[in-house]
This record gives sequence, structure tokens and C-alpha cells, in this order.
Amino acid sequence: MQGSVPAPAFTGLRALADCGGCAAKAPAELVSLLMSATAASSGPLSQVLVGLMPADDAAVYALDEERALVATVDFFPPIVDDAGDYGAVAAANAVSDVYAMGGSVAFALAVCGFPAIVPQQIIVDVNRAAAELIAGCGGSVIGGHSIRCPAPVFGLCVLGFVHPGRIWKKAGAQAGDALLLSKPIGTGILLSSRAQDAERVAVASMRTTNQAAAAALHATARAPHAVTDVSGYGLLGHAGEMAIQSRVRLRIDSAQLPLLAGAAEAARSGVRTSAHRRGGAAVDAAAPEYADDVTAAMRALLLDPQTSGGLLAAVDPRDVPQLEACGFTRIGEVLAGGPGITVR
Amino acid sequence: MQGSVPAPAFTGLRALADCGGCAAKAPAELVSLLMSATAASSGPLSQVLVGLMPADDAAVYALDEERALVATVDFFPPIVDDAGDYGAVAAANAVSDVYAMGGSVAFALAVCGFPAIVPQQIIVDVNRAAAELIAGCGGSVIGGHSIRCPAPVFGLCVLGFVHPGRIWKKAGAQAGDALLLSKPIGTGILLSSRAQDAERVAVASMRTTNQAAAAALHATARAPHAVTDVSGYGLLGHAGEMAIQSRVRLRIDSAQLPLLAGAAEAARSGVRTSAHRRGGAAVDAAAPEYADDVTAAMRALLLDPQTSGGLLAAVDPRDVPQLEACGFTRIGEVLAGGPGITVR
Repeated sequence: MQGSVPAPAFTGLRALADCGGCAAKAPAELVSLLMSATAASSGPLSQVLVGLMPADDAAVYALDEERALVATVDFFPPIVDDAGDYGAVAAANAVSDVYAMGGSVAFALAVCGFPAIVPQQIIVDVNRAAAELIAGCGGSVIGGHSIRCPAPVFGLCVLGFVHPGRIWKKAGAQAGDALLLSKPIGTGILLSSRAQDAERVAVASMRTTNQAAAAALHATARAPHAVTDVSGYGLLGHAGEMAIQSRVRLRIDSAQLPLLAGAAEAARSGVRTSAHRRGGAAVDAAAPEYADDVTAAMRALLLDPQTSGGLLAAVDPRDVPQLEACGFTRIGEVLAGGPGITVR
Repeated sequence: MQGSVPAPAFTGLRALADCGGCAAKAPAELVSLLMSATAASSGPLSQVLVGLMPADDAAVYALDEERALVATVDFFPPIVDDAGDYGAVAAANAVSDVYAMGGSVAFALAVCGFPAIVPQQIIVDVNRAAAELIAGCGGSVIGGHSIRCPAPVFGLCVLGFVHPGRIWKKAGAQAGDALLLSKPIGTGILLSSRAQDAERVAVASMRTTNQAAAAALHATARAPHAVTDVSGYGLLGHAGEMAIQSRVRLRIDSAQLPLLAGAAEAARSGVRTSAHRRGGAAVDAAAPEYADDVTAAMRALLLDPQTSGGLLAAVDPRDVPQLEACGFTRIGEVLAGGPGITVR
């Protein structure tokens, strides 16, 4: 700011990032290496109910008989230019990990880095939108850290509570369960298409939190057997984690898959995100088997990195009607055998 | 990675950052705007013992009669090239906020962003060193988030516990208190000097946690009246926050200031960090008054952004000998009047 070289002009948040949203997630292979190295250097784990081996959507730390702490941190480069949308989507995405564990939101800390050329008002608007979304979830942003960073990055560390006996893990899906999804797929492909309507559709979906979906799962007569949220590794990546940790085969009926408006057309016309091929690494272990009539466009949608995606739940089939009435779509079944995924 | 343009070669972590360590902290004016906007959009605060208005070193959230949760997040671009040093310093810096509130460390989540050109082993080594340091503090890294980011950034969200009746705030310093500092000053200037010995001295200091300093404060007969840690806004910036929140005047005896080996010489020879002038904004409100014989070099040291700096504590003078025996240095007194700072 003090040099004689004129600063570059600010032309929008997304222009400052080369890969936005959950598509910026590090490759699964690297994440796996980091988790192993970190777990090997661990201190005491007596209070840790969910940690890194295996990892779930969030960490869970026991407090007492009635309460455990759910903790997660999530952040990414801008996925849209509008500051309010960016902050709200980052917050909706961050709280999703708490809801995916069966938790309620207590408070959050902002993770905030922006280049000096970004106008202050935009940084303020990002933070305000995130705080408003957290308030809508019943929590408050009560701290955070802000740095100067060559590329913008924003997100939150979110803390919540869960009953230690009612933690929704990725493990636990049982043969005979129904597989349900709470949100349509397609945010990555829609945003990559750069069509204005497509962005509007994707943003509306990404701003919607999984609070109501989690409440619907809490309201069923039987606790869900396994829950996760769909994000950067795409539906198949996250379904694969559930299949592996639950040691089951998931059958996904692609014809039942709920899709965001315009996503199927964009996929058919060849639109792919820059992270499209990277989802593959997380998927490999689950070795999905595709029926012959599953199109390339459908495969792309199944692997499309989602930002602030829905909850994927394996539930007793008797709870399906009640959950369908609350916005869930039945997308498949849990089968014995595996681990693996069958797409038909 | 898939383009035809060859990727730039990796030449070291620090080359990828233009402003490392706590010197990368956003300007105080922006942080103040962010805190106001965030606080204005807050949800319920009934359990929040320490939040944003006023902010302290970490947030504190009430759990029960005996326990409150201390929560902080801290991260920055590389300040050194060695991966192990970077990870350990980032972790020592992050846990410092928990110790500065009087808390113990329970667990942490990694905040991790690196460009694709950084070798995986380096990213693993950064994370491993951080996990080892957290383990040394009695906690465990049990989660985190990793992204591809054009510039490297690493840090942690740290969670700990504190007794709700024994929270060490910035407010509470009383006229007649002694002002103590647990670590020498000078990490910013030493690292800017780029001399090899200087870096070794700074790294050794930055890797040292404030765990023992906090334990010494816990062991005194009387609880400290005010505690904070010294980081990106320099000694005067953080002392200024204590003076303002405590509504007192702090008198700092610059002749008593403990300095890292080589820091005085580097300051006298004109070495300054790129963030040197930015500390000023945080300092302005405290309007420090300097005695005529305080040199420009000493002023630079008083404003030098510290990474993983020491604890600054206002304590009953009767506890000084015990704390001096544990490594604290008496650097001044708390006076009535103010808020303000007098440097002599």
C-alpha cells in the first residue's frame, strides 16, 4: 500500500480465487496422510468420542453424561461474487457438519483472510451475513481471526452440543435401510456453467442450512442409523465413506436423484468443475459399479463437488414417509456385503 | 496440474507468503469493524462469558458451575521455511490465547491451506509438528480442514476449559499492580533481519508455549488481575488494550524490557517488519507518551509485531518475586488515571 506501484483494481471476489467453495478441498489422499500423521502424534484421547481414526463430519468430545461437544472448522475461497451470499454459504456449509452429527449449534468463530485490495465493506458484509446465519441457527459468532492473505478465504469454526448416546456417525448403516438425501445435487456444475439463473438456483440451495433436515431426523420414532453431509467429494465420495465405515453396499437409484434446476442440462452439455476428477480419489475405495445405462452426465452429477450440500441418511424404512414429508428424497437402499456402491 | 504450462518450482514456504506470522494480522481498524458488525448480528448470548464486546484473547462460553469453554482460532502465512518450526510456532501461538485466559488445553482442529506446488511431505510435517506441540500441552488435534489455497496458511482452532470464576481478562488491572512479561520481545525484527542466528533465536522463543508462564500465574497466592498475550500488535498494542479495558495507565520501563539476543542491535541498525507501521492503529487509542530519552529503536521494539509472544500480566506486587523466579520480568507498573501508556 505504501509502494509506488499502483495496487491492482478489485474486480470481484471470485476473480481472486482459482477454485471456490468445497471444490477447493484438499485431495483425499493428502487429507488421509494428514489425518494419519496427526493421529500418530496425538495426546490424550479418553474424552474423544469421534476423532480422526476414523474421521467423521465433525469431532466429538465428551463433557458429561448428558452432553458432548461437537466441533468443526470449514472454510473456502469465494464461490460467488456477492459478499452476503459468500458469508451465508460459508456459514451454512460450516454448521452442516454439526447438524450431520446430530448436534445443535452453540457458537462459532470466524476464519477470515482477505487481500488488502478487497474493500473493507465487502469483508464486513461477508462476516455479517455469516453471523446472521449462525444467529438463525440459534448460535452466535463470538470470536475469530482475520489476516491479510493473498487470496480470499472465509469460513467458521462451529461448536455445538450433542447427547453422547445420540451421535449420528457415518458408521451404522444397516442392510435393509433406506438411503435418503435432503437436498438436490448440482451446485458445482451449476456454478461452473456461469449462467446467471444457474448461480441463483445454486446460491438459494447453498444458503439453506441443514437445520430443518436434522430436526426432521430427530423427530422420527427411530434414530437414523448413519448420517453424513454431502460436500467437496460429491455424493459418491461421501456415500463411499458411509459404505466403508458401515461395511455395507449402498445402491443408489440415479433416476431418483433430486437435481437442482438446470443441473442435468448443464451436465449433459459437458459442464464440469475443475475439481471434477479429484472427487475420484475419495470414491476409489468404494469402487462404484455403474449400470450400463448410467450416462456420463449422470456420473458427473454423482461426483459433482457440492458446497453446503444436503444430509445423506440411512434410516429404518418405516421412517421414510415422515422424512419424505419433510423434504427428504429416497435415493436408494442399503444392502449387505461390500463395502461398495452400486449405481443403477 | 493438468495444463501445459509447467508448474512453478517450490523454493520454500516463506517465499510463498508476503507477510508471515502474526504480522499478517488484519489492521486493527478492520478487526474493530468486523467485531461490531458481527456482534450486531448476534444470536443468544446468555452463556457467553467473554465475547466480542469487548473482545479478549479468546471467547469463553459457560458450561456449568465448574467449567467454561475457552475457544480461539489463530493462523498465519509461513514465518519460517522449516515445516516443523512453522507447525510448532503456529500451534504455540494458537494455544497462547487459551493460556492467556487462564485455561487448560483440551483439543484442537487444524486450519490448513497450501498451494498444490508445496510437496505433500512438507504439509504433513507442518501438521505433525502442530499435533506434537498440542500433545505436549495435554490436548489432541482431533479434526480440521485442509484446502488448496494460492498462498500457504496454517493454524489451529483450540478449545480448552477454564473455571468460570477464574477467567483472566484484559480488564481488571488495578493501580498499584506490577506489570510483568513472560518472554523477551523482538521476534518480528529478528525475523526481518534474515540473519541465520537471529532466526534461530526467534524460532526458539516462538516454539516455547505459555503453558509454564500460565502455570506460574496459577500458582501465586493471589489471582492475577489482568492477563493478555503479546502478538501481532506488539507490546504497546496489547498493553494498550489492557489499559483501555482496565481504565488505567500503564507505565512501561523500557530499560527493564527483556529483549531477544540481537534484537536491540537489529532495531538500532534500522531493521523493521513490513507490519511495523500497522501496529500504530491499535496503539493510537492508548496514546502512548514517550520520555525524551526513549530511542527510535526502542519504540520500534515496543511496536514490533510478536508471533507467539509472552503473557503480559498485571499482578499484586507481593507475587512478583515468585513470578520472577519462574521467568517473568517486571517491566512496569499500573497507575491510576488513563486509559493510557507512559513509556520511560
